[in-house]
Amino acid sequence: MIIKTVTLSALLVFISALTLKAQLKPDYYNAADSIIVHSLSEQKGYTWLGELCNIGPRLSGSDNLNKAVEWSKQKIESLGLEVWLQPVMVPHWERGKFESACIVSPGACRELNIAALGGSINTPEEGITAEVIEIKTFEELEKRKDEVKGKIVFFNHPLDPCLVSPFKGYEDVVKFRSRGAIEAAKYGGAGLLVCSITSRYDNVPHTGGMRKYDPAYEKIPAAALGFRDAMYLSTALKNNPSLQINLKLDCKTFPDVLSYNIVTEIKGSKYPDEIVLVGGHIDSWDKGTGAHDDGAGCMQVLEVPDLFKRLNITPSRTIRCVLFANEENGVRGAQAYGRYSDSLSVKHIAAIESDRGAFTPRGFEFDADSAHKSGIIEKLNAMLPVLKKAGIEWIKEGEGGVDISFINNVNAHIGYAPDEQRYFDVHHSDNDVYEAVNPREMQLGTAAIVILAYLVSEEGL
Amino acid sequence: MIIKTVTLSALLVFISALTLKAQLKPDYYNAADSIIVHSLSEQKGYTWLGELCNIGPRLSGSDNLNKAVEWSKQKIESLGLEVWLQPVMVPHWERGKFESACIVSPGACRELNIAALGGSINTPEEGITAEVIEIKTFEELEKRKDEVKGKIVFFNHPLDPCLVSPFKGYEDVVKFRSRGAIEAAKYGGAGLLVCSITSRYDNVPHTGGMRKYDPAYEKIPAAALGFRDAMYLSTALKNNPSLQINLKLDCKTFPDVLSYNIVTEIKGSKYPDEIVLVGGHIDSWDKGTGAHDDGAGCMQVLEVPDLFKRLNITPSRTIRCVLFANEENGVRGAQAYGRYSDSLSVKHIAAIESDRGAFTPRGFEFDADSAHKSGIIEKLNAMLPVLKKAGIEWIKEGEGGVDISFINNVNAHIGYAPDEQRYFDVHHSDNDVYEAVNPREMQLGTAAIVILAYLVSEEGL
Repeated sequence: MIIKTVTLSALLVFISALTLKAQLKPDYYNAADSIIVHSLSEQKGYTWLGELCNIGPRLSGSDNLNKAVEWSKQKIESLGLEVWLQPVMVPHWERGKFESACIVSPGACRELNIAALGGSINTPEEGITAEVIEIKTFEELEKRKDEVKGKIVFFNHPLDPCLVSPFKGYEDVVKFRSRGAIEAAKYGGAGLLVCSITSRYDNVPHTGGMRKYDPAYEKIPAAALGFRDAMYLSTALKNNPSLQINLKLDCKTFPDVLSYNIVTEIKGSKYPDEIVLVGGHIDSWDKGTGAHDDGAGCMQVLEVPDLFKRLNITPSRTIRCVLFANEENGVRGAQAYGRYSDSLSVKHIAAIESDRGAFTPRGFEFDADSAHKSGIIEKLNAMLPVLKKAGIEWIKEGEGGVDISFINNVNAHIGYAPDEQRYFDVHHSDNDVYEAVNPREMQLGTAAIVILAYLVSEEGL
Repeated sequence: MIIKTVTLSALLVFISALTLKAQLKPDYYNAADSIIVHSLSEQKGYTWLGELCNIGPRLSGSDNLNKAVEWSKQKIESLGLEVWLQPVMVPHWERGKFESACIVSPGACRELNIAALGGSINTPEEGITAEVIEIKTFEELEKRKDEVKGKIVFFNHPLDPCLVSPFKGYEDVVKFRSRGAIEAAKYGGAGLLVCSITSRYDNVPHTGGMRKYDPAYEKIPAAALGFRDAMYLSTALKNNPSLQINLKLDCKTFPDVLSYNIVTEIKGSKYPDEIVLVGGHIDSWDKGTGAHDDGAGCMQVLEVPDLFKRLNITPSRTIRCVLFANEENGVRGAQAYGRYSDSLSVKHIAAIESDRGAFTPRGFEFDADSAHKSGIIEKLNAMLPVLKKAGIEWIKEGEGGVDISFINNVNAHIGYAPDEQRYFDVHHSDNDVYEAVNPREMQLGTAAIVILAYLVSEEGL
């Protein structure tokens, strides 16, 4: 039943909203139209992404990351822009030549699809062979801690399919991947297997980072299972709780190596010292080619100064683009930029990140300190009618992005929030390839980001 | 620059909106949560779609359509519901055993990817061989009418990539496919080729319906070219304006055959004579397997009564589901249902259609007569907070759907409007297969449609 209500408080809120009601210059709408037309029809970022993905995956420490840095530098220079390569030492972990998990018990003997988790130690060459204990939660682990010793702990807690937001689901389960090896080792676990964090029910394993091993406990090898094999293993364990798995990992951590944050900018004409930063991360996991995560985000970032230049848009504030060297396994790129900008007290008006895939636009999320929050939401909402042209439906409080979170002197961290339904189909896996990116979805996102950068450069925050 | 404004009229509009501000029962939110959880986690419609697509494409008049009708009947009965098969005579056109277009001129000799347009006549077995005239618009055709005689007219007017809404683009160019053969024949054209209407720059031809040939002019054979081959042909014509194409089509129109609208319903507990209709069309083109168009829509429709039953939701008004027999090349299913409901003065509270692909939810569009419009938008907007749970961002005036447009005695036609960026990648082509449907995107759409049907059944419109 519909109940009609009129409340005084709602009226007061509205009147206050009305007094703040803002109207943007018509030029902004025209500029937005131009940005959209060029982004959609030329698809430059999408074309660049094809070139970047041809290099292969770009894990920190790999030759491919060096190639991607060089490719980015040349691409930026070809746009007539200057590049600053900010040196940063990044982790170097390699998957090695082999990885396998095999049920070796009679009746269930079978290979399982796995991918070592980033940062895992290797096993001996012959692998480790052990019984498996299936655990759903850390609470269950605590209760069953006496059963764990010498076993491979199998955290089987898939992404909750019931949630409309897969990102919310990711937050709920990522702890098993990141902390599972430490928790299992506490009670003498011999290894870790986790169900891949995926929204696609295929058998492609999804890797990802682990927290640093806790020196108080043994380091144990850790890998993600393909979703279907996680279900298979669960069933096999019901039939034979004492089945054994032979787990072989060849992965290894090497000394840190030198890499670079890639920085370019267009100087602001009125307030050159006020920075509107737009960023993504150039590294990726070593599965797929990091097309959505975060190749596409980086290409969207590079399109910002390119579209400004080609459309003769001179920003009032400085537009700075940063492709961070290392996010996936160490956030070293972000830390280095954060230290640099803190040391020089660089004034950032906003830091905008694209690192949630190149899907169709939905909104922008932001975080800001409580003193500025209401003013910022007011300004961003005043920009919303222009952003709507590129498919942005809303502005809301939320997350900015991992890389930009290290920027302290900033009015707002802003995260581009495209539709998220397909993100965990591809995330950190062999599914994350160029063909999984739709050019129109990506380029509409590019337009939204370019428009936001433009509006913030003109209006401030 | 942001200009702050307060206008009296805005205030008045707001106060009037406030007095209409509506609040829905908390039960609705709980019911919506249940619907979403079941739809996303069980993915029944997506599973059914796999079965339906296994039959193959379902063009009117084909054996596959008969199989799809039988499959639908059995599926509905397996859900414990009764089925009414409403007889309807549908067109029967077949593509035949071959179709080809080949540049036969020296230096450019090459096969082009084509698909005959639905309803086209065939060519002689050896084909027709003729020069080609490339035309962009009907206005250009008019100007160059003296050059057309004896030539194959090549309407090369691709979907405008600059538009944010591909549906808008489709409306702009579909006339070349639907009326191109008639317009070309007016001036003695020997055949028609049109650039496929596609947002993916591949070479897969996209078919689609033609208007009935105009008896005043010759009937000429007509086909769509793959996008890349349309671009190739355009370049080849610049190099050699007198190149010739040999066009062979084996397609044929046969006498109409009997098919059926598939109808099921759950009787309303309070107002059994007031119908909330939810519909899609079971036929498809003969390319791909009609997964998005409109297999998925039909499966979303079938999930409405299934979820009502399984969640013990007893609707106040009757929920009627209709899978229309024939939309693509004749809308005969819709016409038959329209005649039937007119003849019995069936009172429809709303007719909801899902026929824009199974992509992630964005909104619902509606049309209603001007007398009821403001009341309906008010009621639908009051439902929006509940619909937002399933990713619906807005309600706006627009199109309901082709099938439901033949229902006259209805308060509102409502079209499910998912994200449209990928729709014309697949539409009417071999790209429209099961694998192109993302289960989460589809099932979130299902939830949105089920929730809307439920709210309308309880609140009326």
